[in-house]
Amino acid sequence: MKVDPPKELLKPLQVPSKILMGPGPSNCSQRVLQSLGHQIIGHFHSEMFKLMDDIKAGIQYAFQTKNKLTLALSTAAHGGMEACLGNLIESGETVLIAKCGIWGERAGNMANRIGAHVEFLKTEHGVGFDLDLLESYLKKFKPAAVFVVHAESTTGMKQPLEGIGNLVHRYNSLLIVDCVASLGGEPFFADAWEIDAVYTCSQKVLGAPPGITPISFSPLAVKKIFGRHTKISTYYWDMTILGDYWNCFGKSRIYHHTISATLIYGLREALAELAEEGLLFRWSRHKLVAAKLREELLKRGFQLYVKNPKFQLSTIVSIEIPRGINMNILSTRAMERYGVEISGGLGPTFGKIIRIGLMGNNSTYRHVDLLLEALDDALKFAIKSKI
Amino acid sequence: MKVDPPKELLKPLQVPSKILMGPGPSNCSQRVLQSLGHQIIGHFHSEMFKLMDDIKAGIQYAFQTKNKLTLALSTAAHGGMEACLGNLIESGETVLIAKCGIWGERAGNMANRIGAHVEFLKTEHGVGFDLDLLESYLKKFKPAAVFVVHAESTTGMKQPLEGIGNLVHRYNSLLIVDCVASLGGEPFFADAWEIDAVYTCSQKVLGAPPGITPISFSPLAVKKIFGRHTKISTYYWDMTILGDYWNCFGKSRIYHHTISATLIYGLREALAELAEEGLLFRWSRHKLVAAKLREELLKRGFQLYVKNPKFQLSTIVSIEIPRGINMNILSTRAMERYGVEISGGLGPTFGKIIRIGLMGNNSTYRHVDLLLEALDDALKFAIKSKI
Repeated sequence: MKVDPPKELLKPLQVPSKILMGPGPSNCSQRVLQSLGHQIIGHFHSEMFKLMDDIKAGIQYAFQTKNKLTLALSTAAHGGMEACLGNLIESGETVLIAKCGIWGERAGNMANRIGAHVEFLKTEHGVGFDLDLLESYLKKFKPAAVFVVHAESTTGMKQPLEGIGNLVHRYNSLLIVDCVASLGGEPFFADAWEIDAVYTCSQKVLGAPPGITPISFSPLAVKKIFGRHTKISTYYWDMTILGDYWNCFGKSRIYHHTISATLIYGLREALAELAEEGLLFRWSRHKLVAAKLREELLKRGFQLYVKNPKFQLSTIVSIEIPRGINMNILSTRAMERYGVEISGGLGPTFGKIIRIGLMGNNSTYRHVDLLLEALDDALKFAIKSKI
Repeated sequence: MKVDPPKELLKPLQVPSKILMGPGPSNCSQRVLQSLGHQIIGHFHSEMFKLMDDIKAGIQYAFQTKNKLTLALSTAAHGGMEACLGNLIESGETVLIAKCGIWGERAGNMANRIGAHVEFLKTEHGVGFDLDLLESYLKKFKPAAVFVVHAESTTGMKQPLEGIGNLVHRYNSLLIVDCVASLGGEPFFADAWEIDAVYTCSQKVLGAPPGITPISFSPLAVKKIFGRHTKISTYYWDMTILGDYWNCFGKSRIYHHTISATLIYGLREALAELAEEGLLFRWSRHKLVAAKLREELLKRGFQLYVKNPKFQLSTIVSIEIPRGINMNILSTRAMERYGVEISGGLGPTFGKIIRIGLMGNNSTYRHVDLLLEALDDALKFAIKSKI
């Protein structure tokens, strides 16, 4: 043998237990973690189809949609972004992307790859756009689709979505929404808000493991997908086939890929927990907990990065790094001393802000208390280490 | 709320325990299943990087390669196929695809989507091609890449790979190999066989959960990837970025997507089990067990679908369905009475063959005995139900 078995693999697996209060992933509940240990079942077994049906219904509930083409992609949430753009946009078409952080940038990158013409609607970091500004862009660029991020996790900013779908439709365009960092933690109504394509992740507010991505397409989006002039460039994201595997079109199921039984178990249980708690309760829990944290942070003299309450998220609270404080020292201390993850910025906010996630199982007053204790201590430590 | 929480989600999760002896997935060991219950850690935590490094080394061992660009994709194995084709072929280039079952067909579908010119080298089902035939195609079509399936799971056929890489390179082409249904169960030497891109799945011989896909690219492939005239059309498969996330190019790690901690744990433990057993032992175990099954099947009068021993796999044994036997009755009985999965054909072999998987944890004499008991009983039952 030219390549020997690696010695590191002969040592036992070691996984630390952390309290994940960055922008995601968040912690899974014991119920979800236990479900992951079930033996694998096949991708075409009747029990798998039952789980997929239940998950579909759970995702419809979470998105508040009756869309038939609703399912979970076997991918990270980046795949959800790419599947929405790839299915709804053909080469040569224009897509308008609201850009106020890293995710709009990423969507632009993906849209460029499929030959779309990309226009950006840029806003100041931490500030959303309004309908008048959007309308001027719609008039000017006549895009085939508009891409909006509901929760910009790089800044902690919420883009209000009311009225956008209706406006976009008046200009014969389609609305794609990324709610990766908000779904379950912020009120969300895919149908009432006339959203044509939406995706979220499994590992933030929903509290499932990463690797499986809820997604849904409106009837208008389905019409566009089936009326395309060209096939989507990626088989793996092709909703015309995936929709059949998930029994979304009422035809017989066909094989598309081998779904991950493990992740299906975890997502099923996470959605069951959501169904048991109920959206209204979960939304208010996130709102109350985030308000409590902001209040305590303000008391301590921190500056919120998102100033206007209407743009503040209940899932991620962002604050400015106090002058002269080394973010690395801060987060390392919080992790080492308290096992608590506190994140710095990403992309445009790198080195500027602290991001605190209060998502899913980690959105409780108890987590706020722990976070503050860790933050207070880490801050003292960081100040001391400056001297 | 317009959409109520689904009642089915309020019932407890129920997962049956099955013995998976179809063409995959196979059963995970208790060690692998237990690892899945560990709490999530973040995609940019140092402990995650350590696990990724260990997995990379484990994959290099499994493939027998020293390729730096070796990692696991956060996707089903279909994503591995698409990532190989998408990274190595540009629009307008020709790809030669050996087609002797469904997987060559699928690769053709994917290659078409990225604008490649597709040529097929077709062989009879259950029979591989030889180097002379391949050379005539290389001369005629001058492909930029050649796609070969090592283990065609739809027929149970093994394509011998010795000499192919060398021949393909003499024609300035690149060799892509799918070893989804063979890796770990058949001798495989990516470097010695001059393979430029190779992928397998996690859920067959390796015995990890589905949803994460080992993949590796040779230095020649890397040169092609970095010398492309156009960006690959799919961000999610872009190895220039993914390679940085997995620290393959010696630069600093960058964020590409949120990897699934759960699947990382499972794959790590499955690769650890492979490292402990050793490739030589695992290959001979699969060879002995498959030989035993074939012997017993022949004793019972079954006809092997792949006649020539040099094309027979040690991971999947395919036999012709006895005349007049209803495959559905057969497989349903085996599952209901013994909890054993036995599969029919897929695509071109649908309704023609029975496929028995002996992969990873399920490649033991004990499994052969159980399978035969279930098959004998199910056959009797199927004959009775005809009368």
